[in-house]
Parts: sequence; structure tokens; C-alpha cells
Amino acid sequence: MTQQSTFKPGLDGVIAAETGISYLDVEQEEIVIRGYDLIELSEKKQYLDLVHLLLHDALPQQDERVTLENKLKAEYALPQGFLDIFKQLPKATHPMDALRTGISMLGGYDDDLNNWDKESTEDKAIRLLAKIPNIVANSYHVLNGTKPVTPNEDLPYSANFLYMITGKEPTKQEAAYFDQSLMVYSEHEMPNSTFTARVIASTNADIYGALTGAVASLKGNLHGGANEAVMYMLLEGKTIDGFQHLLYEKLKNKEKIMGFGHRVYMKKMDPRALLMKEALKELAEEKDRMDLYEMCDAGETLMREEKGLYPNLDYYAAPVYYLLDIPIDLYTPIFYAARTVGLCSHVVEQHANNRLFRPRVQYNGPRGLHP
Amino acid sequence: MTQQSTFKPGLDGVIAAETGISYLDVEQEEIVIRGYDLIELSEKKQYLDLVHLLLHDALPQQDERVTLENKLKAEYALPQGFLDIFKQLPKATHPMDALRTGISMLGGYDDDLNNWDKESTEDKAIRLLAKIPNIVANSYHVLNGTKPVTPNEDLPYSANFLYMITGKEPTKQEAAYFDQSLMVYSEHEMPNSTFTARVIASTNADIYGALTGAVASLKGNLHGGANEAVMYMLLEGKTIDGFQHLLYEKLKNKEKIMGFGHRVYMKKMDPRALLMKEALKELAEEKDRMDLYEMCDAGETLMREEKGLYPNLDYYAAPVYYLLDIPIDLYTPIFYAARTVGLCSHVVEQHANNRLFRPRVQYNGPRGLHP
Ligand SMILES: CC(C)(COP(=O)(O)OP(=O)(O)OC[C@H]1O[C@@H](n2cnc3c(N)ncnc32)[C@H](O)[C@@H]1OP(=O)(O)O)[C@@H](O)C(=O)NCCC(=O)NCCS
Ligand SMILES: CC(C)(COP(=O)(O)OP(=O)(O)OC[C@H]1O[C@@H](n2cnc3c(N)ncnc32)[C@H](O)[C@@H]1OP(=O)(O)O)[C@@H](O)C(=O)NCCC(=O)NCCS
Repeated sequence: MTQQSTFKPGLDGVIAAETGISYLDVEQEEIVIRGYDLIELSEKKQYLDLVHLLLHDALPQQDERVTLENKLKAEYALPQGFLDIFKQLPKATHPMDALRTGISMLGGYDDDLNNWDKESTEDKAIRLLAKIPNIVANSYHVLNGTKPVTPNEDLPYSANFLYMITGKEPTKQEAAYFDQSLMVYSEHEMPNSTFTARVIASTNADIYGALTGAVASLKGNLHGGANEAVMYMLLEGKTIDGFQHLLYEKLKNKEKIMGFGHRVYMKKMDPRALLMKEALKELAEEKDRMDLYEMCDAGETLMREEKGLYPNLDYYAAPVYYLLDIPIDLYTPIFYAARTVGLCSHVVEQHANNRLFRPRVQYNGPRGLHP
Repeated sequence: MTQQSTFKPGLDGVIAAETGISYLDVEQEEIVIRGYDLIELSEKKQYLDLVHLLLHDALPQQDERVTLENKLKAEYALPQGFLDIFKQLPKATHPMDALRTGISMLGGYDDDLNNWDKESTEDKAIRLLAKIPNIVANSYHVLNGTKPVTPNEDLPYSANFLYMITGKEPTKQEAAYFDQSLMVYSEHEMPNSTFTARVIASTNADIYGALTGAVASLKGNLHGGANEAVMYMLLEGKTIDGFQHLLYEKLKNKEKIMGFGHRVYMKKMDPRALLMKEALKELAEEKDRMDLYEMCDAGETLMREEKGLYPNLDYYAAPVYYLLDIPIDLYTPIFYAARTVGLCSHVVEQHANNRLFRPRVQYNGPRGLHP
């Protein structure tokens, strides 16, 4: 056992895995997804194409895409009685906690849970991708006393997800931006939640366990929880002036401003944020809410000038979701649902070439005490 | 962002945290727990002393110990209707999955969930320590159609835990060995589950989320799941000859033998295993099951001679639990319950001096593809 002499808090810059799934190339400013540029994919393709690419290592032909979508639709339904369980949870349960409980429970319904081979894990990934949007939307309805929305198989996968959340069929434009948001959220190398899933999977734990842990991770406001925090800030700010004032106050109090900064792109704007900014502009024009776009833009300028910090994806995804009439509490669960495919791909990859994660520590406590 | 050039699969030997909680000193052969030797503590003290040491950074005075035990007893009860939820889960749900779901649900009942200060997190730790044995024992009863066992406040903490599992009041000797097993399982530096909990906590996720993720990790058979696997192997082997034959077969098939090896003590015997081996010997004498002790001892010798591998704690904890009439499915949940205090201490420490865990990867996939 050799120990590395340098300790990097947060494993900053430490290589934790070999992967063929994705890579943040900061020099060439590219988010590489199995060889493709995520931004180019998000402009030219749709979410299910990315799902196919991530799970099956190639963009789908037309017929492969249809097969994938049909497989997903066949797995939309939740087990008998499953949603009723959420009726028994405290009403105040956060939707991320409901989702965590939901995925954890789901493992018990999978007859193939203890089958380890790649094909079986990929089938489980399909079941998870099919059911997670249903759990996100409908555990929320049950906890809030609104009526669950049965999946509509006539809609495309992502349009159906949005439909289950709002109860209304989205317009073409709404469906397209929602789909694009799922694409930019789908996979992003080794963020905390993906790392959590791989660490858990490395004990030979099953995919439901790995995905449950990832929900717990994504809830934190230094990670996925930032998107809902951003929206509360925008609402609190109300106007450009109000929002700028709020940001100045927070900076004065040395608070971290949610939606800004990123371990990897500290000195540049997250390219995914740029794409969502464009989506926000178009949606804001359509919905006559250019004030919201301008508030966000003013906040961006302020933070760049005052702190040299750039918006991350969560900063611009939040107002997009707001204009899509999505309840704020569901922003982080949607991020998670979109990331499910990335997480599943990492679990499959970890299981295929595994070594238990088991690091060491630097001990700074006392020695030599006796009871 | 500087990248380290060397990639260590499984973060072998990589320092992932600074901690004052515990340290495996392989050279001096000591498991250091806040300055004390775990083995010495396990011989001279009891589980609740360790709980106090881990949570409050000092061994308790007599009155402090009583206060701690009373606080725990006051929190034994599960929320109204909580156990009924397990009735709705599939009967085949593994007890570790039930526990994972249980801890995940519990977060929603905590009015103080979003309070971040140290004191509040420590109070949550007490609630978790009080309720987890109850969830472990009684979710098992509910799923198996046996009657839940109400906690008995007249018994000491660990004796009550064993009582809730078996439904019988343990003898003094049984209670003492069970308590000792909880001590040796209580804390162990940076194993996968502790690492999982810290990685999750570093996003500012709450303690229930961190502890839920740790259950998922501990379930895997390269980690906590090994103890139940060991017992199934011993039962399959039946006799010394049968067991030796089974081990030779597995070695021939290049299978990993559960209960042997450890990332840190590869070339030595885990000192906790030695303590449990002594406990096994005394219990086996008492219960007239020296055959079981001898099987284990023969397996130990075989593995040392054939592979140079030594037993880990799980190897000897399993037959001890067997002689305490504990259902095999509960061995890993008990390991988890004992480790709860270590996990909580690490979450408190991580929150107190946090940096988000966000490592990098070595990308080995294609580049330059276009859709
Ligand atoms: C994402 C994040 C955790 C990455 O951080 P990291 O790599 O751990 O970097 P650090 O927190 O060490 O930040 C480095 C410096 O920038 C500052 N900084 C980083 N993000 C900041 C923010 N959002 N607001 C204010 N200051 C920030 C830090 O205070 C620190 O300053 P210091 O060196 O003077 O102490 C961090 O930028 C953050 O907390 N952002 C807000 C939460 C968020 O939006 N998360 C979603 C990420 S997709
Ligand atoms: C605990 C454990 C995961 C630590 O392993 P690690 O540090 O990742 O070490 P590796 O798995 O890389 O093992 C190193 C070598 O020892 C061998 N080895 C380790 N444990 C072994 C075991 N239990 N049975 C057979 N061979 C074993 C490995 O096959 C490997 O051999 P190789 O170099 O010829 O490939 C490993 O010992 C193991 O899987 N043990 C069984 C599960 C168990 O009891 N877990 C509970 C731990 S408390």
C-alpha cells in the first residue's frame, strides 16, 4: 500500500476512473460524449438519441430509435400499489427525498435484481429510465394531493415527461426546449453524483443502490440542488434592480451564489449554460417574459465583473423550467431524471472493470490514549 | 485545475480526507479511534462508550453515559404508521434494501431536516442511532410476517437490539458478545461506505441522504455483504472436509473467497477478526458447537497456506451471529447499525470543513465524431 503524499481536498484534479463515456476537455472547450460534442448533439439530435448513444455506444438508426422508445413505453407503468406508498409519507417530504425512496423501493420489485451481467444491467437501466419520470411527476402529485397523471404513450418520451408534470400537453416549442434541457443534463463526466454511483457500484452493489445514492448526492445545493435555489433567488429579486441588490448583499455576506462557478470551468462559461440561455431567450420572447431573461443576463454580468465567476447550467435551466410551468421543487428531480442514463452507463462500466473504491486518510487526531 | 498524472484504480493509497476520527496504522498494527486503540476499547469498554467517544470526542463519565442511553431510549419509537409501509413492499425485498428505504423515508419525518449546524446534525445522529436497530429488526419482522418486537427500555441499548431481532431476552454472555461485535464494527477509517457518506455530504446533502447512500454501498459483497456470504459458505460446507473442498473448488475457479483479504491489511490478520475469533470460541464452547469453530479455523489455515490471505472481520463475525440465533439476512444490516455512529461522525466532520468531492477521469474513448 503506497500512500500519495499530497492531499487534494475534494479530490480536486485527482483521476478517479478510466472511462469511455465522457470527458470535459477544457482546453478544446468540448464536452465529449462517447466521441461527440454534447453541444452539437444537443443542437442536432434529441434526448433519446443520446440515451441510445450512452447505453449502446452508438447513435441509433431510425429503427433502433423506435425500438428504444417502444421498450421504454412498455416499461412506463409503476408496480401495482407503488404510488399509494407515497400517500403514507409525510406531506412535507422533499421531492428529491421521495425520489430517493422511490428508487430504493423499486429494487425490491425487480425479479432480476441479483443478476450481474451487462445485458441484465442494461435492461434494468431501461426500466429505470422508463419509470423515473413517472416517479418524479406522480410522487409529487400524490404528496401534494393532486391527481396522478397516467403516462401518455402517444407523446414522445420527453413530451410525456413534461405532460405528466404539468398535466397539459406541451406545445412543440415547449417540448423541444424541455427535450434539449434533458440532453444537456444527461451526462457530464465525473460530478459528485456520478462519482457516488460508481463508488457504490464498486462494492458489487446493484444499480438501484447506486442510483439511490446518486439522488442523495444530487440533492445538495453545491450540486443539483442549485437549480431550485437559483429560481428562489430570481423570484426574491423580482426586478433587475432587486436581483442585483440581492446579489450584492450575498457577496457582501460572503455567501456562495447558487448557479455560478464550477470545479472544472472556473474561468469560462459552461457551454451548456450558453445553450440554455438561448433557449430562455426564445421562450421568454414567446411568453412575453423578457424581463426574466434580462434579470438573468444582468446577474451574469454582475457576477463576471464583481467576482470573475460564470454561470453554470443550473443558472439558466432554472428560468427555462419556470417558463415551462414546472413546479420549482421538481427542478432537481428533473435534472436527476435526465442524468439517469449517464449514471446507468457509469454503473455498467464500473461493474465491467471493477476495483473497490477504498481510499486512505490523513489522520490529524490524537494518539496513544488509553481507556 | 492540475491533474495528477497517476491513476490508482479504486483510489488505492490515495488520501481522500483529513480526519480526526480514526486511522488504520498498519505499521504499529493499531486501529486508532480518536486516539484510542479499538481493540483495547473493545476489550475494556462497551458500545455506548464508543458511541460517546465518536460523537462527542471523549469517553463518557458514568453520568454522561446514562444521559446518552436515556436520550437514545427516548428516541427508540418509529413514527406512527412507519412500519406499516414495509407491509406494502414486495416480500422478497432484501433487508438491506428495506433499511435503505427506511432511512430514506425517515428524513421526511425530521422537522429539523434543513438545519445545518453541528448540534442539530448531532441530534439527528442520536435519532438515527436510536431508530436504526428498530428499523433493522422490525422491517424484517414485517416483511417476514412475524410480529414486530417493541423496544424494551429495561434492557441496555445493545441487548435490546438483539432482543428485537430474536424476540428473546439474551443471556449476559450473548449480550456481551453482541455488544463487542458492535464495537468492532463501529468505525474503521475510510471504507467504501464511509467514503460514500462523505462524498454525498460534501454536496451539502443532509445526513439522511448520506446514510442512505452508505446502506447501498455496504450491501455489496466486496464490503459488508461479505458476512452473510461467509455464513452461506460455512453452511454449504457443513463439515471441515466439506468446507475445505468448497474453498479449493472456489480457488480453482478463481472466485474471490468472501471473508478474506482487505485493502489495508492484505498481508496480516485484521485484529478485529482475531477478537471475534476468540468470541466465537467461547460461544461455541458454551453452545456445544466447536465443530463450527474448527471449520472456520481450518478455512483460515487453508487460505493462509494456499493464497497468503487472512480472514477479515466478516469471516468471524458471521459464525458469531449464527450462534446468537440471528437470521443470516440480518448480518449486514447489523454491521450497518453498528457503523451508524462512525458514519454520522464522518458526516458531521465533513460538513464542518467541507469541499465538494469532484474528481476527474482518464478518458479512453473516441474523439472527433460528428452526428
Ligand atoms: C460548483 C462549486 C461547488 C465548485 O466549487 P469548487 O471547485 O469546490 O471551488 P471552491 O468552492 O473552492 O471555490 C473557489 C473560489 O471561488 C469562490 N466561489 C466559487 N463559486 C462561488 C459562488 N458560486 N459564489 C461565490 N463565490 C464562489 C469560492 O468562494 C472560492 O473563493 P476563495 O478561494 O476566495 O475561498 C462552487 O462554484 C459553488 O459552490 N457554486 C455554487 C453552487 C452551484 O451552482 N452548484 C451547481 C454546480 S453545477
Ligand atoms: C476486500 C477486498 C475487496 C480488498 O481487495 P483489493 O484491495 O481491491 O484487492 P484486489 O481485489 O485487487 O486483490 C489483490 C489480489 O488478491 C487476491 N484476492 C484478494 N482477496 C481475495 C479473496 N478474498 N479471495 C481470493 N483472492 C483474493 C485478488 O484476486 C488479487 O489477486 P491478483 O493480484 O492475482 O489479481 C478483497 O480482498 C475481497 O474481495 N475480499 C472478499 C470480500 C470480503 O471479504 N469483503 C469484506 C472486506 S471487510
